[in-house]
Amino acid sequence: MMIDTSATRTPAAASAGGAGPQQLGIGMRFSLHPHCDDFVGVILGALADAREAGLDQGLVIESDEVSTYVGARNAPAEQRLVAYLAGVLGAASRRTGGGHVVAHVLLSRGCPGEVSCDLRAVGLPAPAPVEVAPTGVRAVAQWSLYPLMDGWSSAGSHMVPIEAAISAAQQRGTASASSHYATTLTGDVAEVLATATDAWAAVGAQVAHVVSHLTVSFGSPSVTDGGR
Amino acid sequence: MMIDTSATRTPAAASAGGAGPQQLGIGMRFSLHPHCDDFVGVILGALADAREAGLDQGLVIESDEVSTYVGARNAPAEQRLVAYLAGVLGAASRRTGGGHVVAHVLLSRGCPGEVSCDLRAVGLPAPAPVEVAPTGVRAVAQWSLYPLMDGWSSAGSHMVPIEAAISAAQQRGTASASSHYATTLTGDVAEVLATATDAWAAVGAQVAHVVSHLTVSFGSPSVTDGGR
Repeated sequence: MMIDTSATRTPAAASAGGAGPQQLGIGMRFSLHPHCDDFVGVILGALADAREAGLDQGLVIESDEVSTYVGARNAPAEQRLVAYLAGVLGAASRRTGGGHVVAHVLLSRGCPGEVSCDLRAVGLPAPAPVEVAPTGVRAVAQWSLYPLMDGWSSAGSHMVPIEAAISAAQQRGTASASSHYATTLTGDVAEVLATATDAWAAVGAQVAHVVSHLTVSFGSPSVTDGGR
Repeated sequence: MMIDTSATRTPAAASAGGAGPQQLGIGMRFSLHPHCDDFVGVILGALADAREAGLDQGLVIESDEVSTYVGARNAPAEQRLVAYLAGVLGAASRRTGGGHVVAHVLLSRGCPGEVSCDLRAVGLPAPAPVEVAPTGVRAVAQWSLYPLMDGWSSAGSHMVPIEAAISAAQQRGTASASSHYATTLTGDVAEVLATATDAWAAVGAQVAHVVSHLTVSFGSPSVTDGGR
Protein backbone atom coordinates (compact mmCIF):
# COMPACT_ATOMS: atom_id res chain seq x y z
CA MET A 1 0.00 0.00 0.00
CA MET A 2 1.00 3.63 -0.29
CA ILE A 3 2.67 5.45 2.56
CA ASP A 4 0.25 7.47 4.67
CA THR A 5 1.75 10.92 4.20
CA SER A 6 -0.56 12.35 6.83
CA ALA A 7 1.40 10.54 9.55
CA THR A 8 3.72 12.43 11.88
CA ARG A 9 7.14 12.84 10.36
CA THR A 10 10.44 14.15 11.59
CA PRO A 11 11.81 17.15 9.70
CA ALA A 12 14.69 15.04 8.35
CA ALA A 13 12.35 12.40 7.00
CA ALA A 14 9.99 14.94 5.51
CA SER A 15 12.78 16.65 3.65
CA ALA A 16 13.97 13.31 2.36
CA GLY A 17 10.96 12.40 0.28
CA GLY A 18 8.25 11.68 2.82
CA ALA A 19 9.33 8.25 4.11
CA GLY A 20 10.88 7.87 7.56
CA PRO A 21 13.26 5.08 8.67
CA GLN A 22 10.45 2.80 9.79
CA GLN A 23 8.51 3.25 6.53
CA LEU A 24 11.69 2.38 4.62
CA GLY A 25 12.39 -0.66 6.82
CA ILE A 26 15.92 0.54 7.65
CA GLY A 27 17.64 -1.80 10.06
CA MET A 28 20.17 -4.55 10.57
CA ARG A 29 20.83 -7.92 12.17
CA PHE A 30 24.21 -8.73 13.65
CA SER A 31 25.82 -11.58 15.53
CA LEU A 32 28.88 -11.24 17.73
CA HIS A 33 31.42 -14.03 18.10
CA PRO A 34 34.07 -13.65 20.81
CA HIS A 35 36.45 -16.58 20.35
CA CYS A 36 36.87 -17.28 24.05
CA ASP A 37 35.39 -19.39 26.80
CA ASP A 38 33.67 -16.38 28.39
CA PHE A 39 31.74 -15.52 25.20
CA VAL A 40 28.42 -15.06 27.01
CA GLY A 41 29.87 -12.44 29.35
CA VAL A 42 31.52 -10.57 26.47
CA ILE A 43 28.36 -10.51 24.30
CA LEU A 44 26.00 -9.43 27.07
CA GLY A 45 28.56 -6.96 28.40
CA ALA A 46 29.18 -5.33 25.01
CA LEU A 47 25.42 -4.91 24.39
CA ALA A 48 25.06 -3.40 27.87
CA ASP A 49 28.00 -1.03 27.30
CA ALA A 50 26.41 0.37 24.13
CA ARG A 51 23.09 0.79 25.90
CA GLU A 52 24.68 2.54 28.86
CA ALA A 53 26.48 4.88 26.46
CA GLY A 54 23.06 5.88 25.10
CA LEU A 55 23.81 4.49 21.63
CA ASP A 56 20.45 2.67 21.50
CA GLN A 57 18.42 5.87 21.24
CA GLY A 58 15.98 5.85 18.33
CA LEU A 59 16.50 2.11 17.83
CA VAL A 60 14.45 -1.00 18.57
CA ILE A 61 16.76 -3.84 19.68
CA GLU A 62 15.73 -7.51 19.98
CA SER A 63 18.19 -10.35 20.56
CA ASP A 64 17.34 -13.97 19.83
CA GLU A 65 19.38 -17.14 19.99
CA VAL A 66 21.21 -16.50 16.68
CA SER A 67 21.54 -12.73 16.31
CA THR A 68 20.33 -9.28 17.32
CA TYR A 69 17.84 -7.25 15.29
CA VAL A 70 18.21 -3.47 15.34
CA GLY A 71 15.48 -1.42 13.69
CA ALA A 72 15.78 2.33 13.15
CA ARG A 73 12.79 4.32 14.29
CA ASN A 74 14.11 7.89 14.04
CA ALA A 75 16.36 9.79 11.67
CA PRO A 76 19.27 9.86 11.09
CA ALA A 77 18.72 6.11 10.75
CA GLU A 78 22.01 5.00 9.18
CA GLN A 79 24.01 7.16 11.60
CA ARG A 80 22.26 5.62 14.62
CA LEU A 81 22.74 2.06 13.35
CA VAL A 82 26.44 2.37 12.60
CA ALA A 83 27.26 4.30 15.80
CA TYR A 84 25.51 1.61 17.86
CA LEU A 85 27.30 -1.21 16.04
CA ALA A 86 30.72 0.46 16.31
CA GLY A 87 30.02 0.93 20.03
CA VAL A 88 29.19 -2.75 20.52
CA LEU A 89 32.24 -3.94 18.56
CA GLY A 90 34.60 -1.56 20.34
CA ALA A 91 33.24 -2.75 23.68
CA ALA A 92 33.69 -6.40 22.69
CA SER A 93 37.32 -5.72 21.80
CA ARG A 94 37.94 -4.00 25.15
CA ARG A 95 36.18 -6.76 27.11
CA THR A 96 38.35 -9.45 25.49
CA GLY A 97 41.53 -7.43 26.01
CA GLY A 98 42.05 -7.17 22.25
CA GLY A 99 41.13 -10.82 21.69
CA HIS A 100 39.74 -12.32 18.52
CA VAL A 101 36.14 -11.28 17.85
CA VAL A 102 34.13 -11.59 14.65
CA ALA A 103 30.82 -9.87 13.91
CA HIS A 104 28.51 -10.77 11.09
CA VAL A 105 26.30 -7.90 9.96
CA LEU A 106 23.26 -7.77 7.63
CA LEU A 107 22.14 -4.25 6.68
CA SER A 108 18.65 -4.15 5.15
CA ARG A 109 16.44 -1.52 3.63
CA GLY A 110 13.13 -1.81 1.79
CA CYS A 111 12.55 -5.51 2.43
CA PRO A 112 8.99 -6.37 1.35
CA GLY A 113 7.13 -7.84 4.31
CA GLU A 114 9.31 -5.69 6.54
CA VAL A 115 7.85 -2.45 5.24
CA SER A 116 4.15 -1.77 4.83
CA CYS A 117 4.25 0.21 1.61
CA ASP A 118 5.12 -0.03 -2.02
CA LEU A 119 8.50 1.69 -1.95
CA ARG A 120 8.56 2.04 -5.72
CA ALA A 121 5.77 4.59 -5.33
CA VAL A 122 7.83 7.06 -3.32
CA GLY A 123 10.91 9.18 -3.86
CA LEU A 124 13.71 7.32 -2.10
CA PRO A 125 15.83 9.46 0.20
CA ALA A 126 19.63 9.71 -0.15
CA PRO A 127 21.03 10.20 3.37
CA ALA A 128 24.18 12.10 4.22
CA PRO A 129 27.35 10.04 4.81
CA VAL A 130 27.62 8.73 8.37
CA GLU A 131 30.22 10.02 10.82
CA VAL A 132 31.58 7.54 13.37
CA ALA A 133 34.28 8.24 15.93
CA PRO A 134 37.30 5.92 15.55
CA THR A 135 37.27 2.91 17.88
CA GLY A 136 41.04 2.35 17.90
CA VAL A 137 40.38 -1.23 16.83
CA ARG A 138 41.81 -2.31 13.49
CA ALA A 139 39.54 -4.66 11.52
CA VAL A 140 39.54 -6.73 8.36
CA ALA A 141 36.15 -7.39 6.77
CA GLN A 142 34.67 -9.19 3.79
CA TRP A 143 31.83 -7.21 2.31
CA SER A 144 29.05 -7.91 -0.20
CA LEU A 145 26.27 -5.66 -1.51
CA TYR A 146 23.00 -6.86 -3.06
CA PRO A 147 20.74 -4.44 -4.96
CA LEU A 148 17.47 -6.42 -5.33
CA MET A 149 15.88 -4.81 -8.34
CA ASP A 150 12.92 -5.88 -10.42
CA GLY A 151 12.71 -4.89 -14.03
CA TRP A 152 13.96 -1.54 -15.11
CA SER A 153 15.81 0.61 -12.60
CA SER A 154 17.53 3.95 -12.92
CA ALA A 155 20.57 2.12 -11.51
CA GLY A 156 20.88 -0.07 -14.64
CA SER A 157 22.25 -3.61 -14.14
CA HIS A 158 22.61 -4.72 -10.51
CA MET A 159 26.38 -4.74 -11.04
CA VAL A 160 26.50 -0.98 -11.76
CA PRO A 161 25.81 0.15 -8.17
CA ILE A 162 28.04 -2.66 -6.84
CA GLU A 163 30.97 -1.50 -8.96
CA ALA A 164 30.33 2.13 -7.98
CA ALA A 165 30.37 1.15 -4.30
CA ILE A 166 33.65 -0.74 -4.66
CA SER A 167 35.17 2.23 -6.49
CA ALA A 168 34.06 4.58 -3.68
CA ALA A 169 35.59 2.24 -1.08
CA GLN A 170 38.85 2.16 -3.01
CA GLN A 171 38.97 5.97 -3.11
CA ARG A 172 38.22 6.02 0.60
CA GLY A 173 41.18 3.72 1.20
CA THR A 174 39.26 0.93 2.95
CA ALA A 175 38.93 -1.50 0.01
CA SER A 176 42.22 -3.38 0.07
CA ALA A 177 41.53 -6.45 -2.10
CA SER A 178 38.82 -8.31 -3.96
CA SER A 179 38.08 -11.95 -3.31
CA HIS A 180 35.59 -14.44 -4.64
CA TYR A 181 32.11 -13.04 -3.84
CA ALA A 182 33.37 -10.26 -1.54
CA THR A 183 35.55 -7.18 -1.25
CA THR A 184 38.06 -6.97 1.59
CA LEU A 185 37.88 -3.79 3.69
CA THR A 186 40.58 -2.85 6.18
CA GLY A 187 40.87 -0.01 8.67
CA ASP A 188 39.46 1.13 11.98
CA VAL A 189 36.21 -0.72 12.80
CA ALA A 190 34.35 2.60 12.53
CA GLU A 191 35.70 3.36 9.06
CA VAL A 192 35.04 -0.19 7.80
CA LEU A 193 31.43 -0.05 9.03
CA ALA A 194 30.97 3.48 7.64
CA THR A 195 32.19 2.36 4.19
CA ALA A 196 29.62 -0.41 4.00
CA THR A 197 26.84 1.72 5.49
CA ASP A 198 27.36 4.64 3.10
CA ALA A 199 27.45 2.31 0.09
CA TRP A 200 24.28 0.51 1.14
CA ALA A 201 22.47 3.81 1.81
CA ALA A 202 23.58 5.25 -1.53
CA VAL A 203 22.19 2.26 -3.46
CA GLY A 204 18.97 2.72 -1.49
CA ALA A 205 18.41 6.04 -3.25
CA GLN A 206 18.03 4.15 -6.55
CA VAL A 207 16.90 0.64 -5.57
CA ALA A 208 14.11 0.18 -3.02
CA HIS A 209 15.26 -3.18 -1.61
CA VAL A 210 18.99 -3.39 -0.90
CA VAL A 211 20.91 -5.62 1.49
CA SER A 212 24.58 -5.73 2.46
CA HIS A 213 26.50 -8.39 4.39
CA LEU A 214 29.76 -7.89 6.26
CA THR A 215 31.97 -10.30 8.17
CA VAL A 216 34.14 -8.09 10.41
CA SER A 217 37.16 -9.64 12.13
CA PHE A 218 39.55 -8.14 14.65
CA GLY A 219 42.18 -9.43 17.04
CA SER A 220 42.83 -12.41 14.77
CA PRO A 221 46.07 -14.32 15.38
CA SER A 222 46.44 -14.71 11.59
CA VAL A 223 46.54 -11.00 10.77
CA THR A 224 47.92 -10.26 7.31
CA ASP A 225 46.40 -6.79 6.96
CA GLY A 226 43.92 -8.05 4.39
CA GLY A 227 46.53 -8.69 1.72
CA ARG A 228 46.43 -11.84 -0.33
CA MET B 1 31.52 -13.75 -23.69
CA MET B 2 29.74 -16.92 -24.68
CA ILE B 3 30.66 -20.26 -23.19
CA ASP B 4 32.97 -22.27 -25.42
CA THR B 5 30.80 -25.33 -25.96
CA SER B 6 33.67 -27.14 -27.64
CA ALA B 7 35.46 -27.44 -24.30
CA THR B 8 35.67 -30.76 -22.48
CA ARG B 9 32.60 -31.31 -20.34
CA THR B 10 31.53 -33.88 -17.82
CA PRO B 11 28.42 -35.91 -18.75
CA ALA B 12 26.48 -34.29 -15.89
CA ALA B 13 27.37 -30.80 -17.04
CA ALA B 14 26.61 -31.58 -20.67
CA SER B 15 23.14 -32.86 -19.85
CA ALA B 16 22.46 -29.75 -17.79
CA GLY B 17 22.66 -27.18 -20.54
CA GLY B 18 26.34 -27.03 -21.42
CA ALA B 19 27.79 -25.15 -18.44
CA GLY B 20 29.84 -26.92 -15.76
CA PRO B 21 30.25 -25.80 -12.12
CA GLN B 22 33.28 -23.66 -12.88
CA GLN B 23 31.56 -21.93 -15.83
CA LEU B 24 28.60 -21.20 -13.55
CA GLY B 25 30.83 -19.91 -10.74
CA ILE B 26 29.30 -22.29 -8.19
CA GLY B 27 30.98 -21.96 -4.83
CA MET B 28 30.82 -20.62 -1.29
CA ARG B 29 32.69 -18.77 1.42
CA PHE B 30 32.30 -19.75 5.06
CA SER B 31 33.74 -18.72 8.38
CA LEU B 32 33.78 -20.92 11.46
CA HIS B 33 33.50 -19.48 14.97
CA PRO B 34 34.16 -21.85 17.89
CA HIS B 35 33.35 -19.86 21.02
CA CYS B 36 36.27 -21.16 23.04
CA ASP B 37 39.85 -20.29 23.89
CA ASP B 38 41.18 -23.08 21.64
CA PHE B 39 39.43 -21.73 18.53
CA VAL B 40 42.52 -22.05 16.31
CA GLY B 41 42.87 -25.76 17.07
CA VAL B 42 39.18 -26.40 16.45
CA ILE B 43 39.11 -24.52 13.11
CA LEU B 44 42.28 -26.08 11.71
CA GLY B 45 41.28 -29.49 13.05
CA ALA B 46 37.80 -29.40 11.54
CA LEU B 47 39.17 -28.40 8.12
CA ALA B 48 41.73 -31.22 8.36
CA ASP B 49 39.05 -33.74 9.36
CA ALA B 50 36.96 -32.95 6.28
CA ARG B 51 40.03 -33.21 4.05
CA GLU B 52 41.06 -36.53 5.58
CA ALA B 53 37.52 -37.84 5.02
CA GLY B 54 37.98 -37.06 1.31
CA LEU B 55 35.20 -34.46 1.33
CA ASP B 56 37.38 -31.94 -0.54
CA GLN B 57 37.35 -33.90 -3.80
CA GLY B 58 36.31 -31.82 -6.80
CA LEU B 59 36.69 -28.61 -4.77
CA VAL B 60 39.25 -25.80 -4.65
CA ILE B 61 39.71 -24.61 -1.05
CA GLU B 62 41.53 -21.41 -0.02
CA SER B 63 41.49 -20.03 3.54
CA ASP B 64 42.36 -16.43 4.32
CA GLU B 65 42.28 -14.44 7.54
CA VAL B 66 38.49 -13.90 7.48
CA SER B 67 36.97 -16.95 5.79
CA THR B 68 37.45 -19.97 3.55
CA TYR B 69 36.59 -19.99 -0.15
CA VAL B 70 35.36 -23.26 -1.64
CA GLY B 71 34.92 -23.42 -5.40
CA ALA B 72 33.27 -26.36 -7.15
CA ARG B 73 35.21 -27.72 -10.11
CA ASN B 74 33.31 -30.94 -10.84
CA ALA B 75 29.67 -32.04 -10.81
CA PRO B 76 27.66 -32.64 -8.72
CA ALA B 77 28.74 -29.19 -7.48
CA GLU B 78 26.05 -28.43 -4.90
CA GLN B 79 26.32 -31.94 -3.45
CA ARG B 80 30.09 -31.60 -3.02
CA LEU B 81 29.81 -28.17 -1.39
CA VAL B 82 27.16 -29.12 1.15
CA ALA B 83 28.75 -32.48 2.04
CA TYR B 84 32.08 -30.73 2.68
CA LEU B 85 30.46 -28.01 4.79
CA ALA B 86 28.40 -30.50 6.83
CA GLY B 87 31.60 -32.47 7.41
CA VAL B 88 33.48 -29.40 8.68
CA LEU B 89 30.62 -28.34 10.96
CA GLY B 90 30.12 -31.83 12.37
CA ALA B 91 33.85 -32.06 13.06
CA ALA B 92 33.84 -28.67 14.80
CA SER B 93 31.01 -29.82 17.06
CA ARG B 94 32.87 -33.03 17.96
CA ARG B 95 36.14 -31.17 18.57
CA THR B 96 34.45 -28.78 21.02
CA GLY B 97 32.61 -31.61 22.78
CA GLY B 98 29.26 -30.15 21.69
CA GLY B 99 30.32 -26.60 22.50
CA HIS B 100 28.95 -23.43 20.94
CA VAL B 101 30.02 -22.98 17.33
CA VAL B 102 28.61 -20.62 14.70
CA ALA B 103 29.30 -20.78 10.98
CA HIS B 104 28.54 -18.04 8.53
CA VAL B 105 28.00 -19.27 4.98
CA LEU B 106 27.73 -17.41 1.64
CA LEU B 107 26.56 -19.56 -1.29
CA SER B 108 27.16 -17.95 -4.69
CA ARG B 109 26.40 -18.80 -8.27
CA GLY B 110 26.76 -16.75 -11.45
CA CYS B 111 28.62 -13.81 -9.91
CA PRO B 112 29.89 -11.58 -12.72
CA GLY B 113 33.65 -11.27 -12.45
CA GLU B 114 33.67 -14.75 -10.94
CA VAL B 115 32.47 -16.40 -14.14
CA SER B 116 33.89 -15.77 -17.58
CA CYS B 117 30.72 -15.88 -19.60
CA ASP B 118 27.40 -14.16 -20.09
CA LEU B 119 25.18 -16.56 -18.19
CA ARG B 120 22.05 -15.08 -19.65
CA ALA B 121 23.09 -16.58 -22.97
CA VAL B 122 22.92 -20.18 -21.79
CA GLY B 123 20.27 -22.55 -20.53
CA LEU B 124 20.75 -22.64 -16.78
CA PRO B 125 20.87 -26.13 -15.25
CA ALA B 126 18.51 -27.24 -12.47
CA PRO B 127 20.45 -29.69 -10.30
CA ALA B 128 18.94 -32.59 -8.37
CA PRO B 129 18.30 -32.03 -4.63
CA VAL B 130 21.37 -32.72 -2.50
CA GLU B 131 21.58 -35.69 -0.14
CA VAL B 132 23.59 -35.21 3.05
CA ALA B 133 24.00 -37.79 5.81
CA PRO B 134 22.74 -36.53 9.20
CA THR B 135 25.47 -35.12 11.46
CA GLY B 136 23.64 -35.73 14.73
CA VAL B 137 24.14 -32.04 15.54
CA ARG B 138 21.01 -29.95 15.97
CA ALA B 139 21.30 -26.42 14.58
CA VAL B 140 19.35 -23.18 14.41
CA ALA B 141 20.06 -20.93 11.45
CA GLN B 142 18.98 -17.59 10.04
CA TRP B 143 18.76 -17.74 6.27
CA SER B 144 18.43 -15.17 3.49
CA LEU B 145 18.22 -15.63 -0.30
CA TYR B 146 19.06 -12.98 -2.89
CA PRO B 147 18.07 -13.45 -6.56
CA LEU B 148 20.05 -10.72 -8.36
CA MET B 149 18.06 -10.18 -11.50
CA ASP B 150 18.26 -7.45 -14.11
CA GLY B 151 15.21 -6.49 -16.07
CA TRP B 152 12.75 -9.13 -17.07
CA SER B 153 13.14 -12.62 -15.68
CA SER B 154 11.04 -15.75 -16.03
CA ALA B 155 11.08 -15.75 -12.21
CA GLY B 156 9.01 -12.52 -12.05
CA SER B 157 9.69 -10.20 -9.09
CA HIS B 158 12.70 -11.10 -6.94
CA MET B 159 10.28 -11.88 -4.11
CA VAL B 160 8.60 -14.71 -6.08
CA PRO B 161 11.52 -17.16 -5.87
CA ILE B 162 12.18 -16.08 -2.25
CA GLU B 163 8.60 -16.86 -1.24
CA ALA B 164 8.71 -20.17 -3.13
CA ALA B 165 11.92 -21.12 -1.29
CA ILE B 166 10.40 -20.30 2.11
CA SER B 167 7.30 -22.32 1.23
CA ALA B 168 9.48 -25.31 0.25
CA ALA B 169 11.41 -25.03 3.52
CA GLN B 170 8.14 -24.96 5.47
CA GLN B 171 6.94 -28.12 3.72
CA ARG B 172 10.29 -29.73 4.43
CA GLY B 173 9.84 -28.92 8.12
CA THR B 174 13.03 -26.91 8.56
CA ALA B 175 11.53 -23.38 8.38
CA SER B 176 10.37 -22.75 11.92
CA ALA B 177 9.85 -18.98 12.06
CA SER B 178 10.33 -15.78 10.12
CA SER B 179 12.27 -12.85 11.50
CA HIS B 180 13.22 -9.45 10.21
CA TYR B 181 15.33 -10.03 7.05
CA ALA B 182 15.71 -13.78 7.57
CA THR B 183 13.92 -17.11 7.94
CA THR B 184 14.79 -19.34 10.89
CA LEU B 185 15.69 -22.93 9.99
CA THR B 186 15.98 -25.67 12.61
CA GLY B 187 17.02 -29.30 12.39
CA ASP B 188 20.09 -31.44 11.91
CA VAL B 189 22.99 -29.38 10.51
CA ALA B 190 22.83 -31.49 7.32
CA GLU B 191 19.13 -30.83 6.79
CA VAL B 192 19.47 -27.09 7.49
CA LEU B 193 22.33 -26.79 4.99
CA ALA B 194 20.48 -28.93 2.43
CA THR B 195 17.38 -26.70 2.69
CA ALA B 196 19.38 -23.58 1.87
CA THR B 197 21.45 -25.29 -0.82
CA ASP B 198 18.45 -26.72 -2.67
CA ALA B 199 16.64 -23.36 -2.57
CA TRP B 200 19.68 -21.49 -3.88
CA ALA B 201 20.26 -24.04 -6.65
CA ALA B 202 16.58 -23.96 -7.66
CA VAL B 203 16.62 -20.17 -8.05
CA GLY B 204 19.77 -20.58 -10.14
CA ALA B 205 17.71 -22.34 -12.81
CA GLN B 206 15.82 -19.09 -13.40
CA VAL B 207 18.18 -16.32 -12.27
CA ALA B 208 21.84 -16.37 -13.35
CA HIS B 209 23.30 -14.58 -10.30
CA VAL B 210 21.93 -15.79 -6.98
CA VAL B 211 23.46 -15.60 -3.51
CA SER B 212 22.32 -17.01 -0.17
CA HIS B 213 23.58 -16.24 3.34
CA LEU B 214 23.20 -18.48 6.39
CA THR B 215 24.23 -18.00 10.01
CA VAL B 216 24.24 -21.52 11.50
CA SER B 217 24.45 -21.90 15.28
CA PHE B 218 24.79 -25.03 17.39
CA GLY B 219 25.65 -25.83 20.97
CA SER B 220 24.33 -22.44 22.10
CA PRO B 221 23.63 -22.04 25.82
CA SER B 222 20.49 -20.05 24.93
CA VAL B 223 18.73 -22.76 22.92
CA THR B 224 15.05 -22.10 22.42
CA ASP B 225 14.59 -24.40 19.39
CA GLY B 226 14.20 -21.41 17.11
CA GLY B 227 10.89 -20.26 18.58
CA ARG B 228 10.25 -16.63 19.24
